[in-house]
Amino acid sequence: MPEFKFVYTGIRVRDLDRALQFYVGILGMKLRKREKELENRGEFAIVESEGSDQTLEINWYEDDSPVAGPYREGEELDHLAFRVDAFDDALDHLARAGHPVVMGPIDDGKYRVAYVKDPDGIWVEVYEVREAAGR
Amino acid sequence: MPEFKFVYTGIRVRDLDRALQFYVGILGMKLRKREKELENRGEFAIVESEGSDQTLEINWYEDDSPVAGPYREGEELDHLAFRVDAFDDALDHLARAGHPVVMGPIDDGKYRVAYVKDPDGIWVEVYEVREAAGR
Repeated sequence: MPEFKFVYTGIRVRDLDRALQFYVGILGMKLRKREKELENRGEFAIVESEGSDQTLEINWYEDDSPVAGPYREGEELDHLAFRVDAFDDALDHLARAGHPVVMGPIDDGKYRVAYVKDPDGIWVEVYEVREAAGR
Repeated sequence: MPEFKFVYTGIRVRDLDRALQFYVGILGMKLRKREKELENRGEFAIVESEGSDQTLEINWYEDDSPVAGPYREGEELDHLAFRVDAFDDALDHLARAGHPVVMGPIDDGKYRVAYVKDPDGIWVEVYEVREAAGR
């Protein structure tokens, strides 16, 4: 069985600055990264508490983003992310188990990424890092 | 400022066995704990990937649970959990910042637990462990 490593939880927010004011300003999390994703028409931030390996990704998307529709109540959980070392095997394994790819695969030269859904409809990201660096 | 440590993400599912078949059976996560919570009319499981400190809590509730209404699409993100060492200070700090307690505090002798909401309405659990043991 291919190895899947759970690496972060991605939530979706309506205002990234306002969300960071809460998670960083009020809860004291450290901002590790903040980056615009032009192709997604979105922006995300990675935050962690001091002394914890638990990672939260905070995602914001334009209403006309190609990867996310307008924000409605209930869109708060964006996705759970799993890193793999054997991308094709992992997707085959999931498809055979009844969880085919619902978005992707996307290959930007650095990451290979695809999404499947869990039995409750939760988006699960599966990705492989092609270069040595990266999360 | 009181210290808040992000410790796990809690998702909500409609069928715990079916969810574990996905996260444990298909994605290979390890089941660390599974427990019924009689007072909540629910049951939860804690799962982690081998070699990762990232923790996922999978929650299931009866439709008449006192802590959760019927499952509708969009209920997938149950809560994000932060552990604190100074519970009262932490709640004061949050209330002053505009995030008052919306459920709790609950004190079962072992944990003190309360919930606030982030700016997008995401439930944030704040808890203190009263005894040495515990997650």
